[in-house]
Amino acid sequence: MKKTVCIDGLQYVNWHNVPFEQLKGVDAIHVTIAYHEDFRETVTNIQQWNQWFEQFNQHLLHGLSGQDVRCAHQSGRTAVFFGLQNPSPIEQDVGLVEVLHTLGVRFMQLSYNNQSLLASGCYEKTDGGITHMGEQVIKEMNRVGMVVDMSHSGERSTLEAIELSSRPIAITHANPADWHSSPRNKSDTVLKALAHSGGILGLSAYPLHLASGSHCTLEAYCAMVAQVIDIMGVDHVALGTDLCQGQPDEVLRWMRYGRWMKQEINAKAENEQIRFPDMPHWFQSNRDFVNIEAGLRKQGIDDESVGKIMGENWLRFFDHGFQAAHHSVPLRPVLDVSLTQRALSRA
Amino acid sequence: MKKTVCIDGLQYVNWHNVPFEQLKGVDAIHVTIAYHEDFRETVTNIQQWNQWFEQFNQHLLHGLSGQDVRCAHQSGRTAVFFGLQNPSPIEQDVGLVEVLHTLGVRFMQLSYNNQSLLASGCYEKTDGGITHMGEQVIKEMNRVGMVVDMSHSGERSTLEAIELSSRPIAITHANPADWHSSPRNKSDTVLKALAHSGGILGLSAYPLHLASGSHCTLEAYCAMVAQVIDIMGVDHVALGTDLCQGQPDEVLRWMRYGRWMKQEINAKAENEQIRFPDMPHWFQSNRDFVNIEAGLRKQGIDDESVGKIMGENWLRFFDHGFQAAHHSVPLRPVLDVSLTQRALSRA
Repeated sequence: MKKTVCIDGLQYVNWHNVPFEQLKGVDAIHVTIAYHEDFRETVTNIQQWNQWFEQFNQHLLHGLSGQDVRCAHQSGRTAVFFGLQNPSPIEQDVGLVEVLHTLGVRFMQLSYNNQSLLASGCYEKTDGGITHMGEQVIKEMNRVGMVVDMSHSGERSTLEAIELSSRPIAITHANPADWHSSPRNKSDTVLKALAHSGGILGLSAYPLHLASGSHCTLEAYCAMVAQVIDIMGVDHVALGTDLCQGQPDEVLRWMRYGRWMKQEINAKAENEQIRFPDMPHWFQSNRDFVNIEAGLRKQGIDDESVGKIMGENWLRFFDHGFQAAHHSVPLRPVLDVSLTQRALSRA
Repeated sequence: MKKTVCIDGLQYVNWHNVPFEQLKGVDAIHVTIAYHEDFRETVTNIQQWNQWFEQFNQHLLHGLSGQDVRCAHQSGRTAVFFGLQNPSPIEQDVGLVEVLHTLGVRFMQLSYNNQSLLASGCYEKTDGGITHMGEQVIKEMNRVGMVVDMSHSGERSTLEAIELSSRPIAITHANPADWHSSPRNKSDTVLKALAHSGGILGLSAYPLHLASGSHCTLEAYCAMVAQVIDIMGVDHVALGTDLCQGQPDEVLRWMRYGRWMKQEINAKAENEQIRFPDMPHWFQSNRDFVNIEAGLRKQGIDDESVGKIMGENWLRFFDHGFQAAHHSVPLRPVLDVSLTQRALSRA
């Protein structure tokens, strides 16, 4: 590959033809396909993506392995990798981990802000760490090649997940808490444990995770990136912009409260004037990765390191993270592509 | 491959370690994973198979393509291909065809004995042919590479399916009605249309489809095979034994009536003394394919033709039938197998 590889570790865009066209030049994205959906509802979301893969074939392909990122790069398309922000799609059933992996899911957060069956969220009253079921699910995710993502989890749960997982985990979208204090940002302890275990951090451009919020300058953001490199080492730092482009504000209520809080007693949320914040002016859509890349260079970060942050670190991580751990999982078949190009004769 | 390839076009065995061990020497089987289950229940059945693939890895692998049959043959295992006897798992949702194909389903019957949303069954009052939804589903099955199976469908529905499908279809388990009259066996018209369109017939060893039932001799069976070769041509004839080994009789009620007939008013069924018939003495389990092979030779069928009937015809059909029709379906990835054999380092 000649051009810098560009991979975004998390997006939740309101997709249609315009944002799909804006992906030009982005080699891969990890997209959220479910928050609080159960298994059946998640499959309906996958069907929507299957339809988009057919309809927007010139822009997209369904990403399942690192190799698909190279394929996308070579054909000028974007490989789309599925992720779940909450484990609700596996319900109470560890067997659904393999089923969802087969359907293309490559990341799963063990909790989203609050308590799940597996772990505690970063806004929950108590962080009880990884549960019994959580241990079983981590083991199964390790086996099939689904990456543990602790972006929205509490500190104790996150540290335990790093420890319990036999394979490196990810925090796909968050920033250092030392730079901007927020339950969603991560302590030095977490960042170091993550790097030490071979894990990876996707740095967010979502205003609630930024010092000065929507007004955060590109310079301040890139200075933060340089600091994170110092803490974690450049091989463990990547992007996870959390781009929520074009989402109606009502979606925030679904993301935050799913179906566990009744609308009418959601007084606090009503008073919060629940709305998406404006993204910083230098990152409004997928066309703006050039701004971040330029900003990193201006910050004095060397070419090799910029390449790693922009996408090569994620690519290496995808190459290792999405494979079955060993042969007890039946591998997907190696299809003879030439056959599909041949017309199928009816004899 | 040196040894004859052995492929069975339909089995519904009560699986556990004993029948799995008896598969030794059988290269591939098409197994029924659902009759009247909805999508979610079918996924639970798939999870059971995923567990078996892990547990009985030395005997089994999950078959997704013709290549997997060769892999099974070479490693002394059996490739297991999933099929649905009724379209209930796709509910009212054409998008579930691709989802189920991704999960490994390679055959789907458009109806099972009675009316479905897609077609009429061979025991239904009226055979209305392929429905509007049926046309859409056949198109989608053709696109993704899921084979239309009309074993339990009515004559008009079957002929229309052959006509509407842009790719060859299968009748995985049935015999000629001229040999043994039964709503489940197929007329000369159907057999000829099937062969003419490049389709394939799996000949059944289930007593209700046999002249003289459980007492049908191997000689009579093999004479029937020779007759079918004369009607269809040897390239379109294979086996689909419908082996229902070890199933409790209660299962027959589920197969026949699902949840659409209430137990208490099921008077006819009660009086029928509903039970599985005894399989013929020469085909009791997966160890008995040697009997059929010997019988075919004794019948005077030449070596090449015996090879085709025992498995090569199915293998050719699998090679073509399970591939996506063109590139609008994202192909499953070509995994770098060497990677999975490498230990995954945590740094």
